[in-house]
Amino acid sequence: GYMWYTQSAQSAAMCEAAPQKEYAKEMETYVLQLQKQIVSAVEKEDGGKFFIDRWEREDGKGYGISCVLQDSVVFEKGGVNITVMDGKMSPAGAKQMRMRHSELPGKGDDPIKFKAVGLSLVIHPRNPHAPTIHCNYRYFEIPSDKPGEPHTWWFGGGVDLTPIYLYEEDAVHFHKGIKNALDKHSPEYYPMFKKDCDEYFYLKHRNEARGVGGIFFDDLNMKSPQCKSANKEELFQMVKSCGDAFVDGYIPIVAKRKKMPFTEEQKEWQRLRRGRYVEFNLVWDRGTKFGFMTPGARIESILMSLPLHADWKYMHKPEPGTPEAKLLDCVQNPRDWVK
Amino acid sequence: GYMWYTQSAQSAAMCEAAPQKEYAKEMETYVLQLQKQIVSAVEKEDGGKFFIDRWEREDGKGYGISCVLQDSVVFEKGGVNITVMDGKMSPAGAKQMRMRHSELPGKGDDPIKFKAVGLSLVIHPRNPHAPTIHCNYRYFEIPSDKPGEPHTWWFGGGVDLTPIYLYEEDAVHFHKGIKNALDKHSPEYYPMFKKDCDEYFYLKHRNEARGVGGIFFDDLNMKSPQCKSANKEELFQMVKSCGDAFVDGYIPIVAKRKKMPFTEEQKEWQRLRRGRYVEFNLVWDRGTKFGFMTPGARIESILMSLPLHADWKYMHKPEPGTPEAKLLDCVQNPRDWVK
Repeated sequence: GYMWYTQSAQSAAMCEAAPQKEYAKEMETYVLQLQKQIVSAVEKEDGGKFFIDRWEREDGKGYGISCVLQDSVVFEKGGVNITVMDGKMSPAGAKQMRMRHSELPGKGDDPIKFKAVGLSLVIHPRNPHAPTIHCNYRYFEIPSDKPGEPHTWWFGGGVDLTPIYLYEEDAVHFHKGIKNALDKHSPEYYPMFKKDCDEYFYLKHRNEARGVGGIFFDDLNMKSPQCKSANKEELFQMVKSCGDAFVDGYIPIVAKRKKMPFTEEQKEWQRLRRGRYVEFNLVWDRGTKFGFMTPGARIESILMSLPLHADWKYMHKPEPGTPEAKLLDCVQNPRDWVK
Repeated sequence: GYMWYTQSAQSAAMCEAAPQKEYAKEMETYVLQLQKQIVSAVEKEDGGKFFIDRWEREDGKGYGISCVLQDSVVFEKGGVNITVMDGKMSPAGAKQMRMRHSELPGKGDDPIKFKAVGLSLVIHPRNPHAPTIHCNYRYFEIPSDKPGEPHTWWFGGGVDLTPIYLYEEDAVHFHKGIKNALDKHSPEYYPMFKKDCDEYFYLKHRNEARGVGGIFFDDLNMKSPQCKSANKEELFQMVKSCGDAFVDGYIPIVAKRKKMPFTEEQKEWQRLRRGRYVEFNLVWDRGTKFGFMTPGARIESILMSLPLHADWKYMHKPEPGTPEAKLLDCVQNPRDWVK
């Protein structure tokens, strides 16, 4: 059972988390388990095996596990990463973080101690009829002197689907899955996060969405206007529901598309659309930028999201009425996929 | 004949340009001629023909000519653009510009009227033994009420070579050509601009230079510490010398490499290195960022620099002692190519 509360119903007492629970640890346990679950589901669909790369930061302040599938049977490239960091932000990172969070201790570009635990994945199938997917859930905190009572903390994350060819039923299946997961916590979450996703995963320089959207949230804690959960534990449960819904939201779509025949022209269209994916990640994605500014960040893990192949052609425009033009129209005019 | 002056020798009178000359017009005439010269030299080497695309800004405040060679004989993708703009900067563009130029009229993100005239090109050959080249020369001014006496102005530009496989003799030939062009104006230019190029065309997130460098300068006018010319006309002549040296600095290298045999593995290495090129242009290049922020900017012209094909592989590392490792060592340790 669960309950949800509108924001006005939250009392001060409800806003406090159980002081003993250390959510950085809880989240670490969760993402380790989620990574295993996803890797095993993807391997089952593919037939191949992920290459598993565990790494430690040189300063001992964190580790990661990168699971990589490259040039495999069903998938062209897939990375499922977890990162557990307990370190200091660079001056540039601290400055950017303070612009969004005035409550942070210190000022300007003073270094900030932080903990960050997250899972992030991008999977690019080989078949152009199967969509690319991205998903990321993370917990972030600035610790205080008291364990279990951080100075500040938040959850962030989301999941979004990027078809190369549009199958409306796939977009509906994907959105329904994530809506169901969120509705268990509050019916207000899905419409808010869906809208934020359409705004975030947007290539301003192209006036195009990245794909058919999904959900996105950031800086989510009890003080956020978007928060409809009564306490930190409920918020954590909401994030877990999203993570748990990943496999059923995506794998059945790949299963349906992976054996469809395709032509070399369709592969070329796929590479052109993957060029757009590269553009989004390198130009607009906040996570990639934050990674570039984090000292000792592991660049290979950050850029694992980039596709194996991408193309750029001058003034490429699909003929009106083609499936390629249909996809383009869809990303230029984001839709509601479920009511 | 020409003369060059050390900065201390410059008198106030020498710093003033002839008031009648309109350099935006002069530069426009020059880049139109240079574009023709380069396009014809590249066509001769390739055997194919550029597609020529003349476009106008919707607000009538400028035009451009994009010459594009795509999937051709010797060249995989080449774009030689000129742009002539007489417009207003966006608020974001004005703000960024004011951070580097405190002398600009207005403040914060007030719009700024400007004129910009430039040529920019990127050429990606098909043969992995032939290097990619980039070159860009531009004149920028903030007009005042008096014609020929702008509120402020500067030249910017440079040229840099990006080999896929390192041929030291090619790097030396290229650097010698540009050094000779600059030495005619001052022997101090080449070493300064070479150093600035190594710093600018640098992928901080990879600790790698983009290639073997070349020259780079920006914000160059009589007030710049780098300026070793006695007046605006001499500075303009210096920029023209660089532009004029382009064809002889690059085309002989392509002529020498274009028929060398290559393998599919070498093509893959080329695509991986082109991935790095995409990373530089989308993550670090100031011109690309400025373009993205300019209202009505023509995105297809800005992104024409991107290669036809690019690859990304997780943790790709060439075997020690291979030609691929030799290239990597070279971009990780920038050298002096001419004394």
